Amino acid sequence: MSRTALKSSKLLNFANIYQSLSKRYASKLVYKEYGDPVKVILKEEDPELSPGPKEVLVRMLAAPVNPADINTIQGKYPSKPPLPAIPGNEGVGVVEKAGPEVSTIAEGDRVVPLTANLGTWRTHLVLPTSNVLKVPKTLGLVEASTLTVNPCTAYRMLRDFAPLKPGDTVIQNGANSACGQNVIQICRSWGIRTVNVVRNRPEIDQLKAYLTDLGATYVLTEEEIRSTKIFQTEKLDKPKLALNCVGGKSALEIMRYLQNGSPIVTYGGMSREPLTVPTSALIFKDIQAVGFWMTRWSKENSDSVERLEMFEELISMMTNNDLKGPAYEMVKFDNYSEALMNTMTVKGMIGKKFILDFS
Amino acid sequence: MSRTALKSSKLLNFANIYQSLSKRYASKLVYKEYGDPVKVILKEEDPELSPGPKEVLVRMLAAPVNPADINTIQGKYPSKPPLPAIPGNEGVGVVEKAGPEVSTIAEGDRVVPLTANLGTWRTHLVLPTSNVLKVPKTLGLVEASTLTVNPCTAYRMLRDFAPLKPGDTVIQNGANSACGQNVIQICRSWGIRTVNVVRNRPEIDQLKAYLTDLGATYVLTEEEIRSTKIFQTEKLDKPKLALNCVGGKSALEIMRYLQNGSPIVTYGGMSREPLTVPTSALIFKDIQAVGFWMTRWSKENSDSVERLEMFEELISMMTNNDLKGPAYEMVKFDNYSEALMNTMTVKGMIGKKFILDFS
Repeated sequence: MSRTALKSSKLLNFANIYQSLSKRYASKLVYKEYGDPVKVILKEEDPELSPGPKEVLVRMLAAPVNPADINTIQGKYPSKPPLPAIPGNEGVGVVEKAGPEVSTIAEGDRVVPLTANLGTWRTHLVLPTSNVLKVPKTLGLVEASTLTVNPCTAYRMLRDFAPLKPGDTVIQNGANSACGQNVIQICRSWGIRTVNVVRNRPEIDQLKAYLTDLGATYVLTEEEIRSTKIFQTEKLDKPKLALNCVGGKSALEIMRYLQNGSPIVTYGGMSREPLTVPTSALIFKDIQAVGFWMTRWSKENSDSVERLEMFEELISMMTNNDLKGPAYEMVKFDNYSEALMNTMTVKGMIGKKFILDFS
Repeated sequence: MSRTALKSSKLLNFANIYQSLSKRYASKLVYKEYGDPVKVILKEEDPELSPGPKEVLVRMLAAPVNPADINTIQGKYPSKPPLPAIPGNEGVGVVEKAGPEVSTIAEGDRVVPLTANLGTWRTHLVLPTSNVLKVPKTLGLVEASTLTVNPCTAYRMLRDFAPLKPGDTVIQNGANSACGQNVIQICRSWGIRTVNVVRNRPEIDQLKAYLTDLGATYVLTEEEIRSTKIFQTEKLDKPKLALNCVGGKSALEIMRYLQNGSPIVTYGGMSREPLTVPTSALIFKDIQAVGFWMTRWSKENSDSVERLEMFEELISMMTNNDLKGPAYEMVKFDNYSEALMNTMTVKGMIGKKFILDFS
């Protein structure tokens, strides 16, 4: 046996041991009824998985806990997976085994599962190649595992509702949200100016500095936006697009500054107040109040060129450091309850993302 | 001189006398400041008008007083004509003289002025041929003089916001409004079913019968729509389009029944309450809250094929008796104050249109 063959054989051997070890410990989180996540979520062993001819076996590396995951488990989210269900919508993994007919993805490739409600909170899953996106290893684990919801939501809202060009203005509330931070960075990258509204708070100067550092053109509190003169004094065009994740008065305030014929796109309702639109804004200003839900878009565009272009552009922004992943904390898979509780009680300036770490 | 020639000469003579008489008495209404229409509107003599090479001199026959005319005179409407201004947006007249280069329109033709804020409350006006629509004499004066606002608003809202086909459902509030009645009749003509919501009132049975007679599929009060089971029991598809001229709770009620991905189009706000849209309706049901303003559409489509097709189809419906003009009362031009006051204090089951009569 040559040295190379020996080395290779040893490596294979090591890989086999590793594989069998990780298989032995294959496990998943699961819930059999809707309810309080900390109570209804259980950890179970998972049967040994093997990919079909056109499938890959993925060993998960990281999967975030999103607020929508919590709502889904509570049964409060519109898309209700049949029970029992494995939670988790996002994540990144490594291909451990590829089926014999798989040619586009190889073992060792890093991949992001693409379909919603696949259940990413488990150590291993088998997916058809059409349901995974190969991502470069230069893409950080945090960025890769949180790619498909917030960055994509920000990207689509900026692409699909108004014909934005460099120099144009976008206004948003809840600008410190995970999605809001993506909006700021994508706009900076595209030369679009952003007016960012946040709630007042003790550490407001720190928050303003943080968002300005991300690329925000202006950051104003809810009180400041009401009487701002920036559209008169700053040679700033009125916004062609408003993004709303708050609702109520906050939404009304950002809507007020829109150019005639522009949309306000709602993707969240943190105030729990509905959107209120003056009749005159609809009729005479031609303001359009619409909504955006990434889950629906992905379902309707699963095979579209636009989707692949989006991933390519976002990943390129991320690897160029133009788009940062969220503030985060890795939590060992075994300590999943901690990640659930922290996500449910999240406080502070920037919502931190808790990411399950399967290593 | 033959008898025919004599007759013809007499007629011509009569026409000349008539023409000079009517010219001598050419007059207009005018306002020099915004305010209470009864106070600020004055009647003045108008100088003798003569058409340019590509213009026609139109002698007005009838011109309605619309609520928007009142708001314009009060200075409360978004489109503010420079002062002094001649009020009136709609009407029908007869071409008294055509300029030498006019070939498409002849003296004696009946025409409808097409541009907003032309000022139709006057006995004579000169218009470029591009600003008039020739209408058949079989079209009633009432229908012709009220063609360009309410029927066109109804037509465009039904054409431009949802891909409606026979058997589909449209829901609307304020169904007894002038526009609402047009919606009912156009839908009947196109095979579209309508769910019509009106306020409860002592003569509700009479109103329901009136609207059903116009072609309404269902007529329900604001209270009845809240708990209706027609979408479960009547083999009635959920609406693909909601039309709102009320706002507030009424709008919320009709929005509730919309199919996912459908628009609610606001064209009025009679309750003076804004539109309230639940966040979940925007995000998860993909409901789009938009507005429609006929004035803007006409401005943006002044030369469009769609506009001519619309007039053709509406006039054809009207001459076939598929589309009736509004309930109305003719008021002699001299008694214009009466028409203004009655429009401002309009009450009753069906808003009656007061039409200035220049004969």
